[in-house]
Formats: sequence, structure tokens, C-alpha cells
Amino acid sequence: MSDNIVIIGAVAVGPKAGCRFKRLRQDGNVTLIDQDEIISYGGCGIPYFVSGDVSDESELRSTSFHMVRDETFFQDDKGLTALPGTKALKINRENKTVQVREKDGNEKDLPYDKLVIGVGTKPRELNIPGTSLKKVFRVGNMHDAIQIQQMVTAGQVEKAVVIGAGFIGLEMAEALADMWQIDTTVVEYCDQIMPGFVSKSFSTMAQRTMEEEGVKFYLGESVEAIDGDDAVQSVKTNQRTLDADMVILAVGVAPNTDIAREAGLEIAPGGFIKVNDKMQTSDPDIYAGGDCIEIENLITGKPGFFPLGSLANRQGRVIGTNMAGGNATFKGAVGSFVVKTFDMALAGAGLSIETARKGGFDAISVQVSQFDRAHFYPDKEIIYLELVVDQKTRRVLGIQGFGGVGSGMFARINAVAAILQYEPTVDAVSNLELAYSPPFASAMDVVNALGNATENYLDGSYVPMEQDEFETNWNNPNDNDCFFLDCRAYADASVFEKKYPEIWKSIPHNELLNRLDEVPKDKKLVLVCNTGVRSYEAQVNLKAKGFDNTVSVGAGVASLKQFGIDFDLEKKDN
Amino acid sequence: MSDNIVIIGAVAVGPKAGCRFKRLRQDGNVTLIDQDEIISYGGCGIPYFVSGDVSDESELRSTSFHMVRDETFFQDDKGLTALPGTKALKINRENKTVQVREKDGNEKDLPYDKLVIGVGTKPRELNIPGTSLKKVFRVGNMHDAIQIQQMVTAGQVEKAVVIGAGFIGLEMAEALADMWQIDTTVVEYCDQIMPGFVSKSFSTMAQRTMEEEGVKFYLGESVEAIDGDDAVQSVKTNQRTLDADMVILAVGVAPNTDIAREAGLEIAPGGFIKVNDKMQTSDPDIYAGGDCIEIENLITGKPGFFPLGSLANRQGRVIGTNMAGGNATFKGAVGSFVVKTFDMALAGAGLSIETARKGGFDAISVQVSQFDRAHFYPDKEIIYLELVVDQKTRRVLGIQGFGGVGSGMFARINAVAAILQYEPTVDAVSNLELAYSPPFASAMDVVNALGNATENYLDGSYVPMEQDEFETNWNNPNDNDCFFLDCRAYADASVFEKKYPEIWKSIPHNELLNRLDEVPKDKKLVLVCNTGVRSYEAQVNLKAKGFDNTVSVGAGVASLKQFGIDFDLEKKDN
Repeated sequence: MSDNIVIIGAVAVGPKAGCRFKRLRQDGNVTLIDQDEIISYGGCGIPYFVSGDVSDESELRSTSFHMVRDETFFQDDKGLTALPGTKALKINRENKTVQVREKDGNEKDLPYDKLVIGVGTKPRELNIPGTSLKKVFRVGNMHDAIQIQQMVTAGQVEKAVVIGAGFIGLEMAEALADMWQIDTTVVEYCDQIMPGFVSKSFSTMAQRTMEEEGVKFYLGESVEAIDGDDAVQSVKTNQRTLDADMVILAVGVAPNTDIAREAGLEIAPGGFIKVNDKMQTSDPDIYAGGDCIEIENLITGKPGFFPLGSLANRQGRVIGTNMAGGNATFKGAVGSFVVKTFDMALAGAGLSIETARKGGFDAISVQVSQFDRAHFYPDKEIIYLELVVDQKTRRVLGIQGFGGVGSGMFARINAVAAILQYEPTVDAVSNLELAYSPPFASAMDVVNALGNATENYLDGSYVPMEQDEFETNWNNPNDNDCFFLDCRAYADASVFEKKYPEIWKSIPHNELLNRLDEVPKDKKLVLVCNTGVRSYEAQVNLKAKGFDNTVSVGAGVASLKQFGIDFDLEKKDN
Repeated sequence: MSDNIVIIGAVAVGPKAGCRFKRLRQDGNVTLIDQDEIISYGGCGIPYFVSGDVSDESELRSTSFHMVRDETFFQDDKGLTALPGTKALKINRENKTVQVREKDGNEKDLPYDKLVIGVGTKPRELNIPGTSLKKVFRVGNMHDAIQIQQMVTAGQVEKAVVIGAGFIGLEMAEALADMWQIDTTVVEYCDQIMPGFVSKSFSTMAQRTMEEEGVKFYLGESVEAIDGDDAVQSVKTNQRTLDADMVILAVGVAPNTDIAREAGLEIAPGGFIKVNDKMQTSDPDIYAGGDCIEIENLITGKPGFFPLGSLANRQGRVIGTNMAGGNATFKGAVGSFVVKTFDMALAGAGLSIETARKGGFDAISVQVSQFDRAHFYPDKEIIYLELVVDQKTRRVLGIQGFGGVGSGMFARINAVAAILQYEPTVDAVSNLELAYSPPFASAMDVVNALGNATENYLDGSYVPMEQDEFETNWNNPNDNDCFFLDCRAYADASVFEKKYPEIWKSIPHNELLNRLDEVPKDKKLVLVCNTGVRSYEAQVNLKAKGFDNTVSVGAGVASLKQFGIDFDLEKKDN
């Protein structure tokens, strides 16, 4: 019997593991230690505390029924002994004890039958001057959050620089710029925001949403120094100097697993703890979970790193069950994510086109845009989906979406995310059975259209062009001998045709077969319409008539505008 | 080669099959006939046309780019010959021709290489007097819709009776009552709305939402006659007479497959056409799809009937692909659905607890209620989910949900719907990997909590009580020797305790283990809190202390209020 459980780390996985164990083994003892005084908080909520959406930090560590999860709560409600301010110094596996230093400085050994390590991560540091200046913050814990929030609410911040355009960076940028109207600049080393998670197209669409709200971005720039006397005054990149009275360092996380390494537990190359699918480390009496472990990427079958509070909670439950003598497993993750960027959101699961190719897949991706609900229903909005598949096997490797926060995008991403671990082929997306009625979906829903378009691509009947490629062609039409054929109604197309008579022509799709003689035979034909439906039809028609050099802008003019293509139409009449 | 395609029926599956075939075979000929003059309309949108959400009927038969799908559209945009007003009289399989009667009364034979039957259904009739009176309507096609809408907009309807509380009945009731403020009564033969789709609990919660908006319901009543001289004046049930100047008959649909039967095609016992997974009838040159066919229920493996425009569209694409020489399949359906009831919605997939048990499964179901997003995030609402599983195999058989139209309920239902065909066990729901960030989900999301609660039930650590059982106990506490233990904070519980001191006691969960002597030992203890979290903890605590006769109201007081339990608390102070 495992009667004594000791848990190192009391944020997400630890409390969950302890509470689950205790529910199953009311006679067991659970001791939860954490070096921090503030425990059991929702770290993912920090940006919303800084933004003011969450009015008090205690809400981030309260239950849904408004009880603060402190020592008293854990004792009275959960039957756990929580020891905040207690640092684990060393794990002694032979004696099965953990040496800890208590609040008052006393050291002692806590005996365990089973031990849980849930120590999370620490923010990754940049190896540049100035990172220890005042007003340079990480977003690692509630102390950081409280300091940032206090500065912001006191009106002490006029210009902020966020370094890193991943989840935390974007969420913090929104938090600062939205409610507090702080002049906020994001600097990112990669050439896109959310690198590794979404395609360049979708990242650019989301970036533009944030730019419209006043956030500035410098992509593909490396930060060389943070300057200031006592507090930060500016940030120097390889291309410019940005004034700043606050810096948020959000360049990822680093392992925090010294105590596990020193105890001789198996550590993966990246520094994270190795566990099996029961969440046991190389010592079967020691479990680990949350952000400090490596888990399987269920798409690639290879080790992955998914630092998400949602996964930590599920792992915690598995650990609690197993410590109580159960037999629960956690197989890994497909990497579902969603990030809010003001009124819009990026979401996805599985691999992006870039990560799929880097992972050795012969991958392609296809985008569609369509209303999230029946097009005749009044409440609806266009959402964008991208499917990543392996060409040879037609296996679905990932999906990403961009759409309004309240749109149906989130539901589509989650439906495909749910099936990814079953290794579906693309026809599973074509036939995905979304619940249907006009206020919620289309009869031929956008997610089915995504599967259909991908099948058409794989079968050779559909040759799409994405936004970045369009941009290249648009900026240099002569380089590629491009001609833009606009398949929309004349009312929509005429303004383009009038402005660019040499390269842009309006032939509404329904007139196309009667006006074939107007279609240039020796050009690369870029077919456009609003959302890619008519331009695809035109592509099919033209192919049958011998026009082989066509591309269809798959997600349509709607996506080109969101992407930020400058058609310069306003200036036409000047 | 299949060069000549004839399609009987031009609403959903037919046009989709024809257009898909034509895109793959630009050199083929497609003739689309329909006895109706109005073709290719979104029949599911009829309630929203009647309600005024859709302002003109032509919008229901227009593309997303506002072109009406008439003969000209099919000819110019799709390359199909559409013949509205043309009735198919007979299929001659030997000659491979369809005998048709054209608009002008002329009859002729249309030769086919492949034939598609997509004739839909007809509204089921009630075998009672008065169904042919004026102002008694079915909702079978656009002509019905236009007539109803004209009467309503002309202010000619004060009292409407809707017979049938399935999808169409509820949607029509909302349409009449919401915008037009018509005094609307729904009569249903079964003892709940949406019979066969959701549990009594969820149906009652949705019904109450509609009642709050003024719709009246009479359940478990059979309609015996519709009375009136020329037009309807009243509806007589086995229990009452209801004044009515409009009646909507929405009691389901009946097969419309005489032409297939007469041609000797295999017909299923229910009257629907049998097809294989390539959508071929018993004659391989004749395909059928949409509401007129029987398909496999992917949960039971038995024949099922799923009349949904969404499935019709996907079947149409499969038919089109196969007629063009491809090899597409449609495997069946899990029965995903969603229906809007004013600001709330019911949704689900797979089997309800009733249909599962009728289907021979040893099924149980478990409900949970929880915020759809992080509880500390400002925009959130409580949603209700119910999971149906087979006790022995732990296989997930179905899920249902009730929540706000804009809530995250729809996303959770679709995520579980997507995996149902893979025959998941309940741990797949516990570990379902929803995309997580606080504005979209909880770290321990409601859908994972649903899986967890179900596992706890199956493992014997959780004994829930549902709303209808609570109601029985509440109305007759002495019959069952019940005692209600309120685990919420005293502020929430005190009003109950003061009103019902004999049977209701407040012991906040965190005080429970210190106040065990106040807990009656010889009663059935009904444990309650807001959403079932603390009452479950209390159940675990009490069990360890020897209290074996407890139940926990799983979806909490929130669900009891939504269900309509009358706690009569307002009258307390009188």
C-alpha cells in the first residue's frame, strides 16, 4: 500500500494528482510542497489578470465556487497537507525521502511511498546584456504577474517591448495594448508569429489583426541588448533601437529538472524528464507530469514537449489513479492549441505544414475559407481552415484555423483534433459528421469543404495558390507572366479591372465558357473570387478547355485582404 | 464511360451529385429533374425564413455569392441541364430510361447511363379528421414555407398549434413565437420534447427555456382531431381543445420511394431505399442518397435513418465521384444533431440513454455541468453534458449537451461526435485533447470532467442522482426517507435550510469532516452543491466514514433550477 505521497510542485499537476489519489484513498496521506508561497494558480490566466479581465490575482487561484486554494482549502476541502514556501533540496531514492527546507529555514526529510515531481519549467533566458535590469519581466509565476499588473495599473508604462511572439508573448501584448493602451511592440526572431504552430499565411492574418489594434511587430529580428541605467530604457535589436519602459521576455521555457537529474532519474536530451504512459519516471515509485516532462507526439510517434495546463491536469489525474493502485494511462498529445488575438483567434492541432516537412513528411497543405454557419443565416462569419496531409498516405497530420473568438472555428479545430490520434486519412475530414442546423453549421460545412478541397488537390484537379505566393506574383506580375482572372460578379471585380487593365480581367464564372476567347492563352492564370469556390470551378472548366497553367486562390480575396495584400484601390480615383 | 447522368430530385443530394460528377467529367451530360418548380433550396432553413431571420425565400436557394440556383445558374455555372416541373413517372431499368412528364404535359423518356434517386421524403400524415382543412400546414417544401410565412407576416395568425416536438416542430414553434409573438402551443405524443434524441432531463431543461419565451407544451397527449369549417379553428387532443388559426403538422416524415419500389429496387422494411457504402442501390447503375435512403448507424451497426441536409450533401459528393469512375465511400452516420431553442440549444451524437437501452446496450449515462471556459475568465456560461456508455465494455455510445447558442457546448459535442465511429472507451473522453486557453476552455475541461465523472460512476466511487429522480424525492421526501445535505457555502444554502429545516441542512463541504455528528445516519442522503463538484467530494468523504446511502446531484442545483424544480423559496418570507 502507498500510504505516504509526497508531491514536489503545487501548481497544476501536483494538486490534481494529490486530490485524485486522496479521493480514491481517503486513508492515505498527501503532502504537497512548493518553494513558492503562492500555489495552485492558473498560470495560463496571467495575461487576463494583467489585462484586467480578471480583476484580482486571487481569482486565478480560486475554485469555481470562489474558495482560494490555500493551505486551509487543501486541508479542509481536500484532506491534503500543503506546505507552500517549502523547497525540495534533494530526493534520496534509497531511503525514499525528500530533503526539504521549510519556510523558517529548517531542513528535514519527508518520507514517501510514492513521489510526484511536478516542478514545471522556468522561463528561458536570453544570453544578452541587460536582462536583469529593473522592469524586465518574465511571465513565470504569480509574482511576475503581480509586479507587471501593478506597474501597468499604476500608469507607469507607456512603451512596452515584448520579446517573443509565441503564446505568452502574443497574449501579453494583447493584455498591454488592449485595456491599457500601452504602445506595445513585439520582437520575434523567426519570420512569423506563432512559429511552428501555423503557416505563414495564418500567422500573417493574425498579426494584421493585432496591428490593427495598435501592436507593432518586428519579425526576423534578434534582440542584442536591453539597455538602461537601473531600469530598462530601450531594447536594441540587430536592426533598430526601441524605447521601452517595460520589457516582457517571452522566449520560451527551459527545464527545471535539476532535482530529478541529481536523483539519477532518466532525463531526455532536451532536459525534460522521461516518463512511461503511466507517468512513471525511470524509478517506478516516482511519477512526473506537467511541463517538466517529455511526452509522445501522437502524430509523429516521437518525443514531444507540450507545456499546457490542460495536459498537466489530465496527467495529474492519471498519476493519482495509478498511485492509488489503478491502471490509467496517458498516451501523449496531438498538440491542440488556441490563442486569442483580440477579437480573433488562431487554433490548431497536430503539425503545421512547416513542422510536418521538418518532421520528414511529404506534406502539403490546403486552405479554405467559408462562413461558419449557413450562408443564409444572419449570424455568421468567414473562417479560415488549413489542413496538413501526407501526400503519399493521405494521412491527416494537422489542422489550423483562424477566425473570430465567437466563431465556429474552435469547434471545427476540436473535432479534427479529436480524431488525429486515430490516424485518419483525408476522407475522414470530408465526411466528418458535424452536428448540423443552419444556426450552427452549413449543410456542406467548412470543415467538409476543407477535406474536399484537399482531396481535389491530391487528385490533381485543384491547383491552389496561397497568400504569400500571391503576394510575390502580385508585386512582380511581369516576373512570372501572371494574369489575374476575376471570377466574381462584375460589380465586385470592376474596380480591380479598371485599376489594373493590363493584368486583371473580370469574367464572372457563369460567363466564362462563352468568353473563352478573352482568356490569355500564354499566361499563368491566377483565378480569384471571394472564397475560392468560383475560381475552383473556373479552374476545372479551363483545364477541360486546354488551359493548364492556372492557379486558384483557394481562400479567396477575403483571405488576401486579411493577409494584407495592398491592392491600392482607394488611390485609383485620385 | 458514363456519359449521361439523370438525377431525379433536385434539392440537396441530386444537385451535389450532379455538380461533383460534372467537375470530374466536364464532357459528361447531367440532367436534373424535379417535379417542383422550386429546386435546390435549403429546406433546413425554412424555420428561419418563417421567423424572419432570412428575409426572402430566394436566399434559401442562393449560393453564398448571392446567385439564385435556378435553371440558368445550373446551366451557366455548373453545366447541368435542370428541368424543374418535370415529374419522373417510371424507371425502365432494362432500357435504362426514365419516363418523365414535362411542364407542358408532354411525356418522354430520358436515357441514362447512371441514374441518381434523391427524392427525399414526404411529411408523415396523422390519421385523424381535419388534416386537410385550410391553414393546416406541413413543412415539406418551399411552397409550404411561403404560405406559412405569408400568413404570419400578414398578421393573420394569433394562435398556432404545432403538432410534434421534434426538430421541425421546435424550430417552427420558435419561429412563430419569437419574432411574431404568436400564441404558440406544441402538442407531443411522447412525454418529452426531442424524444429519442436527449434524456428527459435535458429535454425538460430545453422545454423550460421555450416556456419562458411563451411557448406552451402539452406532452403525452395525442391529437384526435383538427376542427373547423373551412379553415382550422381548434385542435382536439385526448385531454383538451386548443383554439388555433394555424396548425403545423410536424410529426415526422414518410418514405417517398414508390418509383424505386416499382422499379424493383431493394427497399428496406421502413420503406427507404437500400444502398451500399458506394451509395449504389441494388441496381449498380442506380444510386440513391439523401433522406430517401437507409444508412448504417455507426454506433449500433444496424440500419438507421438520418434525414439531414448535411449528410445528403456528403452522400451527393460520394455519388458524383463514383459515377465519374472514382471510388468514394459513405460509411454511415453517428447521428450528430443540434437544434436551437431560442438562446439555448440541444445537441448530441450517437445514442441517448433511452435509445441505447432500447438498442440492447447495458447503458448508463452521467451528467455534468461546468463553465464552458476558465471559471476566472469573464465571458463564460454553465453548460450541461451527458455521456452515454455501455457499462460492461465502457464504450462511449453517445453524448448530449444543453447550453447557450454561443457557448462552448457545440464544440464539445462535435469533438466527441468525431471520435464515436472509432468506438472509443470512456477514458478517451477523460483525455480528449481540446484546444486550451482560458478564453476557450478550462484546464480540466467540462468534457474531460464528463469522462472523469463517468469513470468514477463505473468504478463505483460516484453515485449520482438526476433531476427527474430528484424531483420525485423532493416532492415526496418521506416516501424515500430522504435528507438533503447542502455542501455549498452557508450563504447559498441558508435559504433552503431555513425554509425546510426538517429535511435540508447546510454543511459546507470544507466543514463536513468536523461536523459528521450532524449528518443523519439512517437517511438517504441527497448531496447537493451548485455544479456537483463539492457534493461528489462529500460523497467520497462520507463513504469512507461509513455513510453508504448517499447520492450526489451530479449536475448540481444549477441544473435543478433549469429543470424547473420548484423550491418555492420566494414564498418563504410571506
